Amino acid sequence: MIIAVDAMGGDYAPDVVIQGLAEALNEYSVISKILLVGDAERIDGLIDQHGLKGHEKLEVVHASQVIEMHEASTLALRGKKDSSITVCANLAKQGKVDAIVSAGHTGAAVASSVIRMRTLEGIDRPGIATVFPAPQGSFVLLDAGANPECSPENLAQFAIMGEIYARKILKIDKPRVGLLSNGEEKSKGTELTKEAYKLLQTVPNIDFIGNIEGKEIFDGQADVVICDGFTGNVVLKCCEGIAKALFKMLRDKLERNPKRKVGALLAKNAFKEVKEISDYAEYGGAPLLGVNGTCIIGHGGSCSKAVKNAIRVASEIVQHGVNNEIIERVKEYKSL
Amino acid sequence: MIIAVDAMGGDYAPDVVIQGLAEALNEYSVISKILLVGDAERIDGLIDQHGLKGHEKLEVVHASQVIEMHEASTLALRGKKDSSITVCANLAKQGKVDAIVSAGHTGAAVASSVIRMRTLEGIDRPGIATVFPAPQGSFVLLDAGANPECSPENLAQFAIMGEIYARKILKIDKPRVGLLSNGEEKSKGTELTKEAYKLLQTVPNIDFIGNIEGKEIFDGQADVVICDGFTGNVVLKCCEGIAKALFKMLRDKLERNPKRKVGALLAKNAFKEVKEISDYAEYGGAPLLGVNGTCIIGHGGSCSKAVKNAIRVASEIVQHGVNNEIIERVKEYKSL
Repeated sequence: MIIAVDAMGGDYAPDVVIQGLAEALNEYSVISKILLVGDAERIDGLIDQHGLKGHEKLEVVHASQVIEMHEASTLALRGKKDSSITVCANLAKQGKVDAIVSAGHTGAAVASSVIRMRTLEGIDRPGIATVFPAPQGSFVLLDAGANPECSPENLAQFAIMGEIYARKILKIDKPRVGLLSNGEEKSKGTELTKEAYKLLQTVPNIDFIGNIEGKEIFDGQADVVICDGFTGNVVLKCCEGIAKALFKMLRDKLERNPKRKVGALLAKNAFKEVKEISDYAEYGGAPLLGVNGTCIIGHGGSCSKAVKNAIRVASEIVQHGVNNEIIERVKEYKSL
Repeated sequence: MIIAVDAMGGDYAPDVVIQGLAEALNEYSVISKILLVGDAERIDGLIDQHGLKGHEKLEVVHASQVIEMHEASTLALRGKKDSSITVCANLAKQGKVDAIVSAGHTGAAVASSVIRMRTLEGIDRPGIATVFPAPQGSFVLLDAGANPECSPENLAQFAIMGEIYARKILKIDKPRVGLLSNGEEKSKGTELTKEAYKLLQTVPNIDFIGNIEGKEIFDGQADVVICDGFTGNVVLKCCEGIAKALFKMLRDKLERNPKRKVGALLAKNAFKEVKEISDYAEYGGAPLLGVNGTCIIGHGGSCSKAVKNAIRVASEIVQHGVNNEIIERVKEYKSL
């Protein structure tokens, strides 16, 4: 198994990327080679620092450009054709790697993957599948931002892909699939969700539980949550925002007096454990499901653990034949 | 000032409603009368229990029906014309009350208010304005669920109404208005948000700061957050869900061993204070801005404090002439 890793992607790249891939090479023997894509000059010194110089499983592929976070996604296709993410997508297109991993510009990663790798047979639009932690276990939400506008058919295809991901990668036995809406009743929602509801009832072999509300998704009621990419992205970022806000408020209140400070000190492992559960780094990036290949998109703020886990998720998707099952199941659904 | 209160609305009605209005009558001298609308037989005993029998500022208006939470909103208009919420809306229509307050069925409250009270001159659709707590102070989001589908024009009108609400009721000097989207750049979003962005730039006298992402809304970057009612409702409920989930995870972890339990005990006021900040009861229900009258929609799970505060918010909106300013400002915007 060969994986291309975008050395330049993410707020702390290339340092944490190289640290993360060093850990991945160490832990995941299933990976036979990692192609590290980026500015060879900057990378070489860091490879040396991380003791990876001459590592038999590591190869540097030079890419002279980087797409910065504030730049337009379309630069990945026009203007910056030698950007690290575009070179990764080209390697996948040419069949030189089984998967690509980037914690860089999400839009650029989506655009270059879709254009270079194309979508799987039967899939109209790929979706970003993001894992959310919750007290009763995690769930996967898609689309978390690849397609701001979706059709009901897109949502039905997301359901098929999300169900396979939850079953094969999250190891959930019979994943329950819910449609994110503003009410539980079938009659609630927008034209999009109401039409998608009807379609989802016709998808074979999925346990469609109907509409699910925002407050129920953290209640363990669904394993797969389906929505358009605008709503999904807003939800993803709101959750990040509110978790941060709550921890901040709590920290402020805990520092108010000595008694509370002692309490916080005694209980500090509890806070640490909750932070760990709600830490995206554990989940290691979100796959762009539905492209003809494997593309894992890491969080922009990825630390080395997040990079390592993103590489793990990439290898698992390849190993478990997620794409083949998507093709089969979509064919079955469309033949009805 | 006369306010109609739906005695039957909410999970703990009518008991907490009567408790809440007793507190409101006690605290807010600006209110000259409360008409308590609901099943007179059930209410009378409770009024007695709460020591309100014969209170000069309280009058019971009988309504023989209740719209249950699982029932359709349209029942408020057809089928259950003598429901407590419909009777409240009729009292407002007839000019017998200045405001109505209900913690019952949100859809029914919206439908009956819009149909009976109609919208303010120049306003096409009313929006539910919900206050969210955040570390740097609260912000108001609208629409939180009245209109799952919106036009760009609706969003521009929400901005005008939200700005007035933030300034007059939340006492924010020059409220910054942000458009909720999946990226900060103008080019991000759906067709709806991109068109709304253009319109918002033309609205006079508002400080439009552009797109705002889900994680930034809790960062104190905007005082008014504009979105369609589907997205707003999903965000509102997700925030409720994730806050509950985080507290639950923390409680579980704090109970793991005696050391942590002692820590939690010492720090318990810090937790209590954070819960208080994030408690919707403090904010007292959300106004349905844009109807020709004043309608406050309480949380279904309202406790007596939430009911009391909802009555306070109703009186403040009437007192500060929010509706008159909405009419003026929309006229100014439309005349451009």
